[in-house]
Amino acid sequence: MLRLPGQIARKIQRILKQARVARLATVDPKKRPHVVPVCFALVGKALYSAVDQKPKRVAPERLVRLQNIRAVSRVALLIDQYDEDWNQLWYVLIRGKANLLSNSSRQERGLAIRRLRAKYPQYTPQMLADNAAIIRIIPDRITSWGNI
Amino acid sequence: MLRLPGQIARKIQRILKQARVARLATVDPKKRPHVVPVCFALVGKALYSAVDQKPKRVAPERLVRLQNIRAVSRVALLIDQYDEDWNQLWYVLIRGKANLLSNSSRQERGLAIRRLRAKYPQYTPQMLADNAAIIRIIPDRITSWGNI
Repeated sequence: MLRLPGQIARKIQRILKQARVARLATVDPKKRPHVVPVCFALVGKALYSAVDQKPKRVAPERLVRLQNIRAVSRVALLIDQYDEDWNQLWYVLIRGKANLLSNSSRQERGLAIRRLRAKYPQYTPQMLADNAAIIRIIPDRITSWGNI
Repeated sequence: MLRLPGQIARKIQRILKQARVARLATVDPKKRPHVVPVCFALVGKALYSAVDQKPKRVAPERLVRLQNIRAVSRVALLIDQYDEDWNQLWYVLIRGKANLLSNSSRQERGLAIRRLRAKYPQYTPQMLADNAAIIRIIPDRITSWGNI
């Protein structure tokens, strides 16, 4: 589990388990940031996000997020909720390192895919292939703000 | 106005005018990305976001987004909407350069603040000071995906 002071850790874990979408920021070697919405699942100390079969603008191997992570492992993942009542605003910002699970990580890949399918009924076998590229994020800093 | 092919440009302009929140990704000199939710207003070819009086974790001058923009001007701004029906998903990704308006940019600062206040009734004079730090983003690439 995420190693944070008890009360906040539990709250943040609950938020991470319930959140349906996050925004993943990556960066290329020329310090150009990129950010996309992603689905994800929290499994123990790691967060997993799959390159699924939602239509993409380019072939998976050319996806900017993957090219960026291969070149620069540092990422930021934001979970937040907008509300017109600004007293209700909050966010959780996770900074850490990301990598793509290799084909040899069969057990970890299987676990990540099972958890993603359990969280998102949209992840049919067609939408999330057993051999999908899986991004693993290991947080090293979690900060939160607002009405959490 | 944003120089894009007519139909898409109008749609994207409408989205940018209506969107209540975006996620701003910045990067520091060590290639560490950062991302926060921001309010913003589209004015002509530029997007403006203010450092307002919502409570912050640190003093404004220490805000990571501002430190990052001072060091690395490239930013990415994401506007998207999550939906459990994944056929409804979409996003607009803006990449460009950001800078902080200087105190000498009185006219531009005044315009940005007026537009932000017009878009967000939450921006009372207390919430958005006349001397607030204003981030200007000039897009150089706008891409969109999904059901737009």
